[in-house]
Amino acid sequence: MKSWRDVATAIADMIVRGAPAIGISAAYGMALAAKSGDDWSEARNGLAASRPTAVNLFWALARMDGLQDRDFESVLAEAKRIEHEDFEINKTLAHHGATLVGPNSTALTICNTGALATGGHGTALGILRTAFSRGNLRFVYACETRPRLQGLRLTAWELDREGIPFSMIADSAAASLMSQQKIDFVVVGADRIAANGDTANKIGTYALAVLARYHRVPFYVAAPSTTLDPETASGDSIPIEERGATELLEIDTLTIAPPHFRVYNPAFDITPGNLIDAIVTEHGVIRPPYNFRK
Amino acid sequence: MKSWRDVATAIADMIVRGAPAIGISAAYGMALAAKSGDDWSEARNGLAASRPTAVNLFWALARMDGLQDRDFESVLAEAKRIEHEDFEINKTLAHHGATLVGPNSTALTICNTGALATGGHGTALGILRTAFSRGNLRFVYACETRPRLQGLRLTAWELDREGIPFSMIADSAAASLMSQQKIDFVVVGADRIAANGDTANKIGTYALAVLARYHRVPFYVAAPSTTLDPETASGDSIPIEERGATELLEIDTLTIAPPHFRVYNPAFDITPGNLIDAIVTEHGVIRPPYNFRK
Repeated sequence: MKSWRDVATAIADMIVRGAPAIGISAAYGMALAAKSGDDWSEARNGLAASRPTAVNLFWALARMDGLQDRDFESVLAEAKRIEHEDFEINKTLAHHGATLVGPNSTALTICNTGALATGGHGTALGILRTAFSRGNLRFVYACETRPRLQGLRLTAWELDREGIPFSMIADSAAASLMSQQKIDFVVVGADRIAANGDTANKIGTYALAVLARYHRVPFYVAAPSTTLDPETASGDSIPIEERGATELLEIDTLTIAPPHFRVYNPAFDITPGNLIDAIVTEHGVIRPPYNFRK
Repeated sequence: MKSWRDVATAIADMIVRGAPAIGISAAYGMALAAKSGDDWSEARNGLAASRPTAVNLFWALARMDGLQDRDFESVLAEAKRIEHEDFEINKTLAHHGATLVGPNSTALTICNTGALATGGHGTALGILRTAFSRGNLRFVYACETRPRLQGLRLTAWELDREGIPFSMIADSAAASLMSQQKIDFVVVGADRIAANGDTANKIGTYALAVLARYHRVPFYVAAPSTTLDPETASGDSIPIEERGATELLEIDTLTIAPPHFRVYNPAFDITPGNLIDAIVTEHGVIRPPYNFRK
């Protein structure tokens, strides 16, 4: 990418996705702006407008705003620091989260929360990776994650490369697996966690949380502390991005339904904190009741 | 189609789908067998093996077995009667079911249960059609119904033709709609209903039932009495068809994931009778506890 505008478009079009990766990308976008001598505020606001839900975006931009020097080298160095820190945070987070995974466990997850969504290693998928390396994780069921299929196209690719045994499922098959007692725990990422633990994440997460509670399956959220948003009291105040109808009506170049069909396509949903058995950050495993106020 | 084998292939490949339509098609398959002078038992068993879950298939074949005359005209006449009866049954069923729909209601449904799945009018979708004609139904949210997209490709087509206002959703967005109190009731079809009310239906139905109970949204099942299976005591004894990986990994001619990925792809799930607020047949609205033993 050559400019901050390229980066903003990449975030809006989900060429880059995953809350931590969005934050890191925005930081590099500011470095590109500094390199070109673009107006700082214009670049900052343009990047901030690229996606509304993931709070890491605003966190990374606020950190760039806090720089004393805004020359290219300083801004680039800060972007690199953010990227590297996220990688380290994920490894620490995964270390804590893996303590939740008992021997011979089968996990269920949704969307992509791995190296492709972060500075490396991953959040929810990072926990699975670390638990597998410790010999505790036996199997992963990965929701395909309609409409954009991040589970089928990204998580499956990462699991396959890591040699972690997995099966893909339609999102709607998760309940059936839980009723057959085939799932030991659910672990998901987060785009924003409000002060009371309410968590915005990929559409379908809330359904998994309700189903997990009904079937007495532990439900965990994994995210770096940069995803915590103490300024937002509860999930009611988290803006939920609605995306276009074509995400359902087309797959790549294939049109699968008439373009005039109406579609309701929220990209995220809110899981109330009271359905979350633990939130895992780099600081450790946090149990309810949650209170992330400053 | 020229032979019972063509019909069996059409059922196995889901060119014909929907429990009532499968039963009707199997009856016509027997008429084709009679026309060609094929062995009756071979045709009967071949058609019976085409799909395991929908009980209407076995019901229709048993009815054909009960014919005194197995000449082509007699068999064809019986197949026509089965088709016509199903159409009449659906209209009566829809009349009963529409009494459950209050003014200005918004419904949620999954898969296709309309004219394309039956002898005409439809079961769950027949209720929506009748309720709309009475001025009570305001809006329908239709789950796209992965992996085969019967909601997006069949239900949406029927709703569009009928002029019933609707939006498509990813299956995973249903929970979010319920939490926003946008759904007044859920209505689904059935492939087999056990004596205790446990219901096999399209994968994803069970998740909707759990979510509906959690959100205190009424959950209804609609099916002709030919879908009741008094011989099967509970859902535990209903065979659940697992279908191939390509249903998730390919859409039409488009490959969306590597063919070596493992997939768990049950075509149906079981909703326990205790999560179903009413079962609607042509005989009326039946409330729990269910007992369909003979």
